[in-house]
Amino acid sequence: MFNTQDTICALSTAAGPGAIAVIRISGTKAFEITERIFSKTLAGADSHTAHFGRIVRSDKSILDEVLLTVLHAGKSFTGEETVEIACHGSQYIQQELLKLLLQNGCRMAEAGEFTMRAFMNGKMDLSQAEAVADLIASESRKAHEIAMNQMRGKFSGELKDLREKLIHFASLVELELDFAEEDVEFADRRELKALVSEVIVYLESLISSFELGNAIKNGVPVAIVGSPNTGKSTLLNQLLGEERAIVSNIAGTTRDTIEEALNIDGILFRLIDTAGIREATEDKIEAIGIERSYEKIRQAQIALLLVDSLSYLEDKGGFELWAMEVKSQYPDKKLLVLFNKVDTVDPALLPQTVQGIPALAISAKHNTGITELKSRLVDLILQNKDLEQSTIVSNARHIEALEKALISLNQAKTGLEINVTGDFVAMDIRQAMFHIGSITGDISTDDLLGNIFSKFCIGK
Amino acid sequence: MFNTQDTICALSTAAGPGAIAVIRISGTKAFEITERIFSKTLAGADSHTAHFGRIVRSDKSILDEVLLTVLHAGKSFTGEETVEIACHGSQYIQQELLKLLLQNGCRMAEAGEFTMRAFMNGKMDLSQAEAVADLIASESRKAHEIAMNQMRGKFSGELKDLREKLIHFASLVELELDFAEEDVEFADRRELKALVSEVIVYLESLISSFELGNAIKNGVPVAIVGSPNTGKSTLLNQLLGEERAIVSNIAGTTRDTIEEALNIDGILFRLIDTAGIREATEDKIEAIGIERSYEKIRQAQIALLLVDSLSYLEDKGGFELWAMEVKSQYPDKKLLVLFNKVDTVDPALLPQTVQGIPALAISAKHNTGITELKSRLVDLILQNKDLEQSTIVSNARHIEALEKALISLNQAKTGLEINVTGDFVAMDIRQAMFHIGSITGDISTDDLLGNIFSKFCIGK
Repeated sequence: MFNTQDTICALSTAAGPGAIAVIRISGTKAFEITERIFSKTLAGADSHTAHFGRIVRSDKSILDEVLLTVLHAGKSFTGEETVEIACHGSQYIQQELLKLLLQNGCRMAEAGEFTMRAFMNGKMDLSQAEAVADLIASESRKAHEIAMNQMRGKFSGELKDLREKLIHFASLVELELDFAEEDVEFADRRELKALVSEVIVYLESLISSFELGNAIKNGVPVAIVGSPNTGKSTLLNQLLGEERAIVSNIAGTTRDTIEEALNIDGILFRLIDTAGIREATEDKIEAIGIERSYEKIRQAQIALLLVDSLSYLEDKGGFELWAMEVKSQYPDKKLLVLFNKVDTVDPALLPQTVQGIPALAISAKHNTGITELKSRLVDLILQNKDLEQSTIVSNARHIEALEKALISLNQAKTGLEINVTGDFVAMDIRQAMFHIGSITGDISTDDLLGNIFSKFCIGK
Repeated sequence: MFNTQDTICALSTAAGPGAIAVIRISGTKAFEITERIFSKTLAGADSHTAHFGRIVRSDKSILDEVLLTVLHAGKSFTGEETVEIACHGSQYIQQELLKLLLQNGCRMAEAGEFTMRAFMNGKMDLSQAEAVADLIASESRKAHEIAMNQMRGKFSGELKDLREKLIHFASLVELELDFAEEDVEFADRRELKALVSEVIVYLESLISSFELGNAIKNGVPVAIVGSPNTGKSTLLNQLLGEERAIVSNIAGTTRDTIEEALNIDGILFRLIDTAGIREATEDKIEAIGIERSYEKIRQAQIALLLVDSLSYLEDKGGFELWAMEVKSQYPDKKLLVLFNKVDTVDPALLPQTVQGIPALAISAKHNTGITELKSRLVDLILQNKDLEQSTIVSNARHIEALEKALISLNQAKTGLEINVTGDFVAMDIRQAMFHIGSITGDISTDDLLGNIFSKFCIGK
């Protein structure tokens, strides 16, 4: 499927005009092809050296003055001979330079092909390669942290330990198998049972980390719902206002993607249907509002049920009925009641929970309780988990493999308990190892690789 | 206005997510600041060397693994100590890395500040610096060529020669002035007159190149006008179709900006109001169509007057009347009559010109005469000018300065003719030199520099 013999090139920096752009070339002919269009020879150039010179067309016309970095095979990202050309960032120059490279023997790189070559050449395993894409896509400190740990091999290391345990386990079982006819039981089955249980607990903890990992990676969708005039729009602005100010301080970077997102303690919360909140005319009939609220809660992971404190105290029953209905319709959503406009009532009259849903008194307008609200949002997600210490799995493919491994190990465990013969148990363990090996790419197919790397951007 | 003592940083690649991004740092503390956040020491690092390592925050957390290039003062683009950090292209990493640099003593660069420092440090003159921005903005081969020549100092060199001629001239006139009371006329006035005339002719040719330079730099607006059912939409698709195919071949680069543009022989033609052509229902009443045509011609530099060959032969008078009106209303527009659907008539019946406007027979549908049409479009713009040989001025500021210099030199010439005293002539020549010096930045003010560099992008 992938040809790794030829030399590939692609624009590696973001598309569009900029001050400079970087075009990357990797493969056995990277230096040879570059020399055909560069004003200087690269023969004898040390690895990790930069060279200023001109890109010259075959008709001697000058395309650009560039700074070109030479990276020798074994010392580059891909592990192959690599040249990185920093040219002026005009789209014309970018396109012409790529054309020139294609004319001189390069092929346009497929999406993710540089990283795939790094994997093929043993510079990183598959889960590390996947972390490169996650790293590039990460939008918050925690998502970045998970991707960075994974890229640097923390997860791979743990899986390696796990595989070693399973190999040891399998060898014990197989040793028993070899001598099965002699009816000798070498491995202490109690010890084996303890080992498999330990691995199962570990796998389960990895699998359970995915909910958090996924939330951190993709951002946590948050719905703000409530009747008209409860202050949804004011709360939205209060939450987003400060965020915008922080982001605007760093000039020259795009901020569209995080416009409606809130970064609290390094976790990204996406406020859904903010346009709906902003546009909503407050006199729409109630029925539509409620239906819409349910639709929003359905899309969210956290729903903030906003109520006007005064209205609540005047008609507790009405709101509690609604809260109860939300809770029963969406048992797996994380809910938080917000008593807004707390300054208009005596706070002592407001309860700590409504129908078992935790509640918080705030004033969106006067910025009361907003810091506490943010802290509560983070707690709802982290639930006392220590991110620094634990391994968090954030990749759906990995979880699928871990779940399959878990099934095999549970079968092995049952086998041991009901005393099936060693060969069945060994088969289950080998199956578990196969699934774990698919995460790091010890076992891989072209289809799998194609599927993984096609999701990368071109140039990486 | 500009502080050049501190160390500046900015994202130099295009905004948005990409595989990699480059952040540039320039100034006396570039190495010192970088070392505070980089996992390796840069002491003793040679210029033009690349270093792989980690960006580490003060709390020891790792922000990224990067390839960092060191460029020593005097050998960098700005002429200052420079570090270029190629990091992973996530927007989070870009922003965090910039934040980290700011925390450690960098200042965010203003638009164009790197290039301005290159100018301040004598790495290039002002017209070369301006060419850097033109180079980045260039969208076609010819626009790129003009910018590249200018950046590489061709124009600067010619202006330098011009200044030397004028200095020589002024010194001759001033020598005369010193001995004025002795009524000695050292400089041969005939020779002086010849010299000033020569310079005037040269300036005039530079100034007259601006129409072409401007057309090439910004693209040539072209209007396609004609009655309903003459085939405007078909012609548009025929012209743009091939272009699209070429552009689509280079993956990974944006192509939005040139969607409605046509690149012929390296010159960009912008087809205006293409949406209008595509959307136009052909049964709109004639009056609106004609009014709209006039508006389009007004915006264009070239107008293609499209007519159905058969309709033309049936009612020559009607079309000729319209052509005449267009010509008289827009005497400075370049016009070309296109007899479309030539396959439906005997081509011999169609004239070569209509009311003095050149005409061409085509079939948009069958791709007849389209190559000839493209060649005519280029001829209308180039008008036999040899781009390779001539210096083309494309910058409005330069033309303004050249025009002012011309006025001064014409005054000097008149002065010589009516035999005014040398001091007046010398004053005019000094004035001309001042204006020419303002182009290369030999004479510049903070206001002028601020105005020029604020138009650059950040990071250049």
